[in-house]
Amino acid sequence: MPSTKLRNCIPTLLLLFLFCFLVSTSHGRRIRVTRNSTYHSDNSIVYLWPLPKHFTHGDQTLSVSPDLSLSLQGVGSNSSVVQEAFERYRDLIFKSWAQVGSTSEYDVSTLTVLVSSDDETLQFGVDESYILYLDGKQSGSIVGGATIEANTVYGALRGLETFSQLCVFNYDTKAVEVYNAPWYIQDEPRFAFRGLLLDTSRHYLPVKVIKEVIEAMSYTKLNVLHWHIIDEEAFPLEVPSYPKLWKGSYSKQERYAVEDAYDIVDFAKKRGIHVMAETDVPGHAESWGVGYPDLWPSENCTEPLDITKDFTFEVISSILSDMRKIFPFGIFHLGGDEVNTDCWNNTAHVKEWLTNHNMTTKDAYQYFVLKVQQIAIDLNLIPVNWEETFDNFGEKLNPLTVVHNWLGPGVCPKAVEKGFKCIVSNQGVWYLDHLDVPWEKFYTSEPLEGINNTDHHKLVLGGEVCMWGETADTSDVQQTIWPRAAAAAEKLWSPLEATTVNNLNQTILPRFQYFRCLLNNRGIAAAPVTNFYARRPPTGVGSCFEQ
Amino acid sequence: MPSTKLRNCIPTLLLLFLFCFLVSTSHGRRIRVTRNSTYHSDNSIVYLWPLPKHFTHGDQTLSVSPDLSLSLQGVGSNSSVVQEAFERYRDLIFKSWAQVGSTSEYDVSTLTVLVSSDDETLQFGVDESYILYLDGKQSGSIVGGATIEANTVYGALRGLETFSQLCVFNYDTKAVEVYNAPWYIQDEPRFAFRGLLLDTSRHYLPVKVIKEVIEAMSYTKLNVLHWHIIDEEAFPLEVPSYPKLWKGSYSKQERYAVEDAYDIVDFAKKRGIHVMAETDVPGHAESWGVGYPDLWPSENCTEPLDITKDFTFEVISSILSDMRKIFPFGIFHLGGDEVNTDCWNNTAHVKEWLTNHNMTTKDAYQYFVLKVQQIAIDLNLIPVNWEETFDNFGEKLNPLTVVHNWLGPGVCPKAVEKGFKCIVSNQGVWYLDHLDVPWEKFYTSEPLEGINNTDHHKLVLGGEVCMWGETADTSDVQQTIWPRAAAAAEKLWSPLEATTVNNLNQTILPRFQYFRCLLNNRGIAAAPVTNFYARRPPTGVGSCFEQ
Repeated sequence: MPSTKLRNCIPTLLLLFLFCFLVSTSHGRRIRVTRNSTYHSDNSIVYLWPLPKHFTHGDQTLSVSPDLSLSLQGVGSNSSVVQEAFERYRDLIFKSWAQVGSTSEYDVSTLTVLVSSDDETLQFGVDESYILYLDGKQSGSIVGGATIEANTVYGALRGLETFSQLCVFNYDTKAVEVYNAPWYIQDEPRFAFRGLLLDTSRHYLPVKVIKEVIEAMSYTKLNVLHWHIIDEEAFPLEVPSYPKLWKGSYSKQERYAVEDAYDIVDFAKKRGIHVMAETDVPGHAESWGVGYPDLWPSENCTEPLDITKDFTFEVISSILSDMRKIFPFGIFHLGGDEVNTDCWNNTAHVKEWLTNHNMTTKDAYQYFVLKVQQIAIDLNLIPVNWEETFDNFGEKLNPLTVVHNWLGPGVCPKAVEKGFKCIVSNQGVWYLDHLDVPWEKFYTSEPLEGINNTDHHKLVLGGEVCMWGETADTSDVQQTIWPRAAAAAEKLWSPLEATTVNNLNQTILPRFQYFRCLLNNRGIAAAPVTNFYARRPPTGVGSCFEQ
Repeated sequence: MPSTKLRNCIPTLLLLFLFCFLVSTSHGRRIRVTRNSTYHSDNSIVYLWPLPKHFTHGDQTLSVSPDLSLSLQGVGSNSSVVQEAFERYRDLIFKSWAQVGSTSEYDVSTLTVLVSSDDETLQFGVDESYILYLDGKQSGSIVGGATIEANTVYGALRGLETFSQLCVFNYDTKAVEVYNAPWYIQDEPRFAFRGLLLDTSRHYLPVKVIKEVIEAMSYTKLNVLHWHIIDEEAFPLEVPSYPKLWKGSYSKQERYAVEDAYDIVDFAKKRGIHVMAETDVPGHAESWGVGYPDLWPSENCTEPLDITKDFTFEVISSILSDMRKIFPFGIFHLGGDEVNTDCWNNTAHVKEWLTNHNMTTKDAYQYFVLKVQQIAIDLNLIPVNWEETFDNFGEKLNPLTVVHNWLGPGVCPKAVEKGFKCIVSNQGVWYLDHLDVPWEKFYTSEPLEGINNTDHHKLVLGGEVCMWGETADTSDVQQTIWPRAAAAAEKLWSPLEATTVNNLNQTILPRFQYFRCLLNNRGIAAAPVTNFYARRPPTGVGSCFEQ
C-alpha cells in the first residue's frame, strides 16, 4: 500500500533529520535542565492510571509499613490468586531492602481484602468492580488502614493494582507513603473487553516476553490478550491432532508447545486476563501448508486455504478443538480478513468446485467463513471475525458474531444497527504498529462514536489496540506497545466524562508521563511520551517525567 | 561536534528512506520465508558464547532430567552464591511446567559443582577459571553426568553459565538435551577486566533496570559494571556526608538511596560482577552545585568545580569515603575527561588563585586530578582516569593510575610504555551510543593492538564498552547495549586465536545470531544482529536466527 508507506516515510525522514542534529555522540554536552520535584504536592492531580470511576481523597500523608500484611477475608478468603498477587505487589511497592520487623509506627500495617465469592471462573463480563478505602488509624474511621472489597477475586486484583499505585517510595524518609489520604475509591470498568492484540507469527516472541507483556497489561487493567498466534509467515503452535502443522514455524526453537500455551493462559488468569486465541482463515494461512501441502490449492496458490477439500475443514475443526481445551475464554477469533481469492479462480480444481457449487469467489469466501463459524459455535464458542466479513456479507454472518472493526471508523455503528456485537480497533487510531499515531489519538478515540441509539451501546463489547509484529520483536515490542496502549486502556476503563477532555496537555499529560515512569520503574520499556513518533529514543537528556 | 553528527545523520537518513519502503503497515503481506531447522546438527559450530578457551566435544545427544539436582562439594560447598545461581539457571534451563518426579531415564540427573575455596572475596583478578565435564552415564567415564570444578565460586558461576547454554529445549521430545556430547571444557578469561559502562546521569535508570543489565552481563561473562552514576545533568546518588548533593537529581523519585547502591553491588556480586563507581571531576560535575552552589566558581561558571576552595576537596573526599563503604571494588574511577577550564580564567577569584599559585589552567587541571588521585589512594583505591589526563600530563599521573582510553586508537600502547595500566574503550569501536558501529567492529577490536612488547601486555587490564545515556533510557537501553556488547565480551574472554578470524560471516555470525536469540529467550531485548544501525527494529518479518 504505497500511500501508507509514503505517509509513514516522509515525516519519519524529516523527524530523523531533526533528531540527528540534536543527538550528541560525545561524552556529553552542557544543558541546563529543569528539575521538577513537586509530584503529589498538587493534590488536584490524581496519579492513578486508569482513573477510577469514583473517588474522593484528602490531603494527608500516610506511612505504609514494610511489614504490610494481607488479611484475606470473606467467602473468597482461600484464594491463592489474591495471595500470590499480594506477594507480587509487595515486591513492586517495597524496596528489596525494606526493613522488616521494624518497631516504628506506621499508619497502614494491614491490607484487608474482602472477597465475597470463591468462584474463580474467568469469563467475559466477570465482575471486576472493587471498593478501596485507605485511611489512617487515627481517623476514627470504622475501617481504618487499607481495605479492598470486591465481589470476585478479579475485582480484588484490580483493587490491588490501584492500591500499589497509591504507594509511593519517599527517598527522604525512605518509607513508602500514600499522599492525599484518606482515599475512598469505588471503581469498575466502562467496557468489559479491553484488549491488546499480540502477533507472534511475524516474529516469534518467547514465552518469557509474552508473560512480560501480560504483566504490563495488568498494570493498566487491560484484560484481554488477543493472541494472534499464527499467520502466513509462521505457524509456531503445537496442534496435537495435526502434529506437522508447526513445521511451519520459523525454526524448531521458535515454537509454543501445548504446555507453553497452557502456561500463558494460567499466567494471564492469575492476573484476571483472558486469552482470546485466533485461528485466521481462509486467508493469512500460508504457513499451514508447510506441514500439510494439501491445504494449499496448489504449489503456486498457497493462500487462501483449499476450500474444495473436506481435509481443510477437518484440520480447522481439529485446531479449534485442540485450542478449545487450552483456551477457556468463550470468545474465539476466526479471522477472515484480507482474503484475496484470485488464485481460487486460477486453480483448476478450485475453479471447477466453484462452478459446480454455483459460487462466485465472494460466495465461496462467505461459505468458508460461515462454515468455520458453525464449527466454532458447535464447540460452544462465540466467534469474532474481522470486519471484512461484515462489510462483505453483513447479515449472513451468524447472529452470535462479534464484528472486529479495524479498517476505519464508522463500522461498529453499522454492525450494532444489524444487531451484531462489535469490538473497535480502527487502524487509524488504535494500531500500535502505526508509529505516527500519537498517544493523544489513542486516548481520545471513543468506541461508541456514531452510535446514537443508546440501546445499541451494550453491543460494543469494547476495543483492542493491535501490536502487529512485522517490525516488532523481542527487542522493541514493549516500547512499541507502551505507553500508547495505556492511553487506550484508560479510554476503555474510565468513565466517558473523565476521558472526554479538551486540554489534554494540562489534565492528562502529567498523569500519563507519571504513569509511563511508573512502568519504567517496574522494568517495562515504555517509550517517551512526548516524542512525535512512537518507539523512538528520548531526543536528549532529561527527567523521565518530562519526556 | 558537527562532523560527528553529520556522520551519524546522513547514512541514517538514507537507511531510513530504504527502511520505510520496506516496512508494511497492513495486516501483513505475503513473503516466502526460509525455515532453518538445522541448529546443532552441524557439530562444527559451537553454540557457546563467549567461546571457551579449550574444549572438545563429541556427537552424542544427552537428555537432562527436569529434576536436575545440585551436588555442591569441596571446601566451598556451603556457598549460597552457587546454590542461588543454580536456582536461577534451573529457571532458565527448564520450562516452568517441566515435569518433576518423572520416572523416565535421563542421561544427566545431577550437576556436581566442586569449589576448592570458600573465600567469596570478589576482587580484581579473582580466579574465574573452571572445568566442565558433561558426559552420559553409560560412557564409563569416571565422572559421568555433569561436573563443574572451580577454584572459586566465581569460576563456578562461569561454569554454570556455560552449562546453561549447553542445555537446549527440544520441542519434539519436550525434553532438555545436550548436543554433541561428551563435552570437556577448560575455560578462563583472557582479560580480567571485561566491562560495561552504564550512564545513569543523562537518564535515570531504575534499580530494576540496572539489575536487568547486570543479569544480561552475567550471560556474556562480562564482569565489571562501570557505574557512571553522576554527571553534569543529574546527581542521583545519596551521599550521607553531604545530603544536599542529590538535590541535583532530576526529581525526587529519580534517585538512588545508599541502600539501593548496596543492593546493586550485592546483586552484582552474586553474579561475580564487580561494580566500579565513578566520581568524575573536575569537569562533568555541574549537578553537584544544585545542592552546594559554593562548588561552582560562580553562578555563570558551573563547571569545572571550584579549585580554589578547601570545601571542594572536602566534598570530594567525603563522597569517596562514603562510596568506599558501598563499593568494595579496589579500583575507582575518578573521571577527569573533557575539562574545559575557560571559565576558571574568567572568574575573578579563580584567576587570582591561579596567579598566586603560579599555575596555568592546564597546571591547575593537573593539580586537581593529582590531588584527588591522592585522596583515593589514601582510601586504598587504585585510581582510573580518562585518557585526557594521560594525554595532557603523562608521567605526572600517579604510577598506580589506570589510564582509560576512549578518544581513539593508539593510546594504550603509549600508556603502557610509560608503565601505566590501561583499559581500552576506543570510541570508534566500543562506544555503544555510536549506533553506526556494527557488531563486527566490536568483535574485531583487539585491546593489545600496537603493543609489541609482550612484557607490557599484562598492563592492559582489559576493556569496556560504553553505554552513554543521552538517548538511552529504560525504553531502549537494553537493545542499544545488546547484542554488540556481547561481541566485545567474546573478544575480551576468548583466546586471541579464536577471535582473530577472517570470515566473520561464516564462522562467527551464526553463533552470534544464535546467542542473540538466546538473550531474547531470556527476556533480554537484544536487537537484530544484521541491521546496519544499532537498536533499529527488525526490517521485516522473519526468524530471530536470520535477523
